[in-house]
Amino acid sequence: MELLTPSGDPTPASPLQARRWRLAQALAADEATAAVVSPGQDLHYLLGRTHGSFERLSALVIRPGRLAVLTVPATEASAWSWAAEEPDVETVVWSDGDDPYRLVHELLGPGPVAVSDMLPAVHLLPLQADDPEVTWTSGTQLQTLRQIKDPDEISCLRQAARAIDDVHAQVPGFLRSGRTELDVAEDISDTMHRAGFTSVDFVSVASGPSGSDPHYAAGDRVLRPSDPVFVDLSGRWRTGYMADETRCYSLGSPAPDVRLVYDAVRRALDVATAAVRPGALAEDIDAAARNCLATDGLAEHFTHRTGHGIGLDVHEGPMIVRGNSTPLQPGMAFSIEPGVYLPGRFGVRIEDIVVVTGDGCERLTTRTRDLTII
Amino acid sequence: MELLTPSGDPTPASPLQARRWRLAQALAADEATAAVVSPGQDLHYLLGRTHGSFERLSALVIRPGRLAVLTVPATEASAWSWAAEEPDVETVVWSDGDDPYRLVHELLGPGPVAVSDMLPAVHLLPLQADDPEVTWTSGTQLQTLRQIKDPDEISCLRQAARAIDDVHAQVPGFLRSGRTELDVAEDISDTMHRAGFTSVDFVSVASGPSGSDPHYAAGDRVLRPSDPVFVDLSGRWRTGYMADETRCYSLGSPAPDVRLVYDAVRRALDVATAAVRPGALAEDIDAAARNCLATDGLAEHFTHRTGHGIGLDVHEGPMIVRGNSTPLQPGMAFSIEPGVYLPGRFGVRIEDIVVVTGDGCERLTTRTRDLTII
Repeated sequence: MELLTPSGDPTPASPLQARRWRLAQALAADEATAAVVSPGQDLHYLLGRTHGSFERLSALVIRPGRLAVLTVPATEASAWSWAAEEPDVETVVWSDGDDPYRLVHELLGPGPVAVSDMLPAVHLLPLQADDPEVTWTSGTQLQTLRQIKDPDEISCLRQAARAIDDVHAQVPGFLRSGRTELDVAEDISDTMHRAGFTSVDFVSVASGPSGSDPHYAAGDRVLRPSDPVFVDLSGRWRTGYMADETRCYSLGSPAPDVRLVYDAVRRALDVATAAVRPGALAEDIDAAARNCLATDGLAEHFTHRTGHGIGLDVHEGPMIVRGNSTPLQPGMAFSIEPGVYLPGRFGVRIEDIVVVTGDGCERLTTRTRDLTII
Repeated sequence: MELLTPSGDPTPASPLQARRWRLAQALAADEATAAVVSPGQDLHYLLGRTHGSFERLSALVIRPGRLAVLTVPATEASAWSWAAEEPDVETVVWSDGDDPYRLVHELLGPGPVAVSDMLPAVHLLPLQADDPEVTWTSGTQLQTLRQIKDPDEISCLRQAARAIDDVHAQVPGFLRSGRTELDVAEDISDTMHRAGFTSVDFVSVASGPSGSDPHYAAGDRVLRPSDPVFVDLSGRWRTGYMADETRCYSLGSPAPDVRLVYDAVRRALDVATAAVRPGALAEDIDAAARNCLATDGLAEHFTHRTGHGIGLDVHEGPMIVRGNSTPLQPGMAFSIEPGVYLPGRFGVRIEDIVVVTGDGCERLTTRTRDLTII
């Protein structure tokens, strides 16, 4: 195995190589000898694409100061051929009959090895069995790195946000009295697929009392005049990055209590968004939304965290929640989504995606935050 | 925790309860104290449905002679409410701030615990950290159980097979000279979604030389007159069970070499299917197909295993491959899919799903095994 000397060539050849180098540096800082990264979004982050079946081990091994090694099964080698374009990644192919766990082990020294969160037990247990000198730890370095988006990623998230904005623009056409929530959800799902979303991960159409449950998806309830409806849409845009946006609609004029609650949630969203800046803590943003709703006597009905990081996963760090004292940094992207859920009556949630800038934040979702009356 | 005494009530209340009891018995036979099953198909198998986010631990703990315990996060508890219908499953809800790993640990004694293959490192590592008295092992008992389908499962697989039969019946309408493979694949994918498949996992449209690669999906190649095309379709039917079927098509009369290879693969499929009976070994079926192709001088171009088990996962046990000496038993369901791939020229694969019966097998896929000439 050749030594890679990033110090001799301090400019990474690509944003992807920069991500691998940053991970190697983070591992070295933690005195970890390697990271073992399994197919999924962690690998996508480091190689720009992902692949790999569940049953046969594919893994990317990142080590400080050495070439990265991608081990893949021969049966899938052709599907990984694109990885050969990365100058600092060596591909090692194993065949049925070889022991892929031994192959990975030969790349590791004694000491802590970080594994990606997604690595399944079917592979982690045999890796652990091979060598008691290696200690296996959670790959927090990678999750921490992934919280800070580089310019390519921010561009991808912006495109995803614009795409879900465009879907929300079509939602009023689907919401009519007499239709069921499921009818509407199906139209929205079709629209997302046609627009270019490669997966539709969540379509919530929570009308009237359905909105009491913050995690409601859609059901047989028939829409009625003057129903408030919150519509929460999430999916993977064609670049691989996730979109997530919630907006509220009203079939005709909203009842006065709906209007009051809506305006309170809207204020909480505005106040929390205004609180975002480098150096503020993640929990400060949560507190800003919560305190704002408290002044309206609604804090007890805001029953979930204020937001979650977003990127290649729809839920990743930083979580915008009490107890998370992570200082915000430019490039962090997350949702701000205060909500109020009144048992048996209705719910209101408004959700934007923002990215932290040098002095505040940019809203990536740009649809009106007003209640849309249909 | 109350003791459950299956011996006092030897008739399970449902096929699902029977599965949980069989797993408990298999654990006891292996002197394992428990199985920890994470959301996914293993949990679906044991509870009839699955749910659960990645980030917060949900787990079903099965223990010999005791109630099963389902631990779920409070934020998702309402979405798990259906599990309360199972009489021998107790649901335990944990809230943000609780330690869900400690909660699982309190259910375990010292000794071996089997974990489901899918359990991700983000949960397995903290489970392992809690107690050195517990040893963590692969949940082979569950994989072994899942190989033998009960009557409910066979019915689900039969429905899935019929559904994919119906999609193949429409494929000739999509295959026309001048269209690209991707055009055809998109039509097929739409057809599968509309028919009721909840996911479309694989659509291969391998025309002419594209068919040299057994794992080819679809590309920009334009279909031409007299092209042979193999079409491999896989998806999840609405019951949760998987369909998988490959058929071959020819745009006009096939060339003589295509016809020769087709007939050889067809013979291999017939011979392998005829070899299926209780007591035959999984590898015997593989050998039957391979030896048949050898008599035609084509064995070297049959570059993959003969088949794979199928159920809630599209690839599960038993693998129909050299070295797998598992004796076949009634209820085992798997693919038989011999293929021949001629570099730079074309490929032929025909794939059926069969289930082992008392004296042979039932073919679940029932479309004609003849080459369909369009």
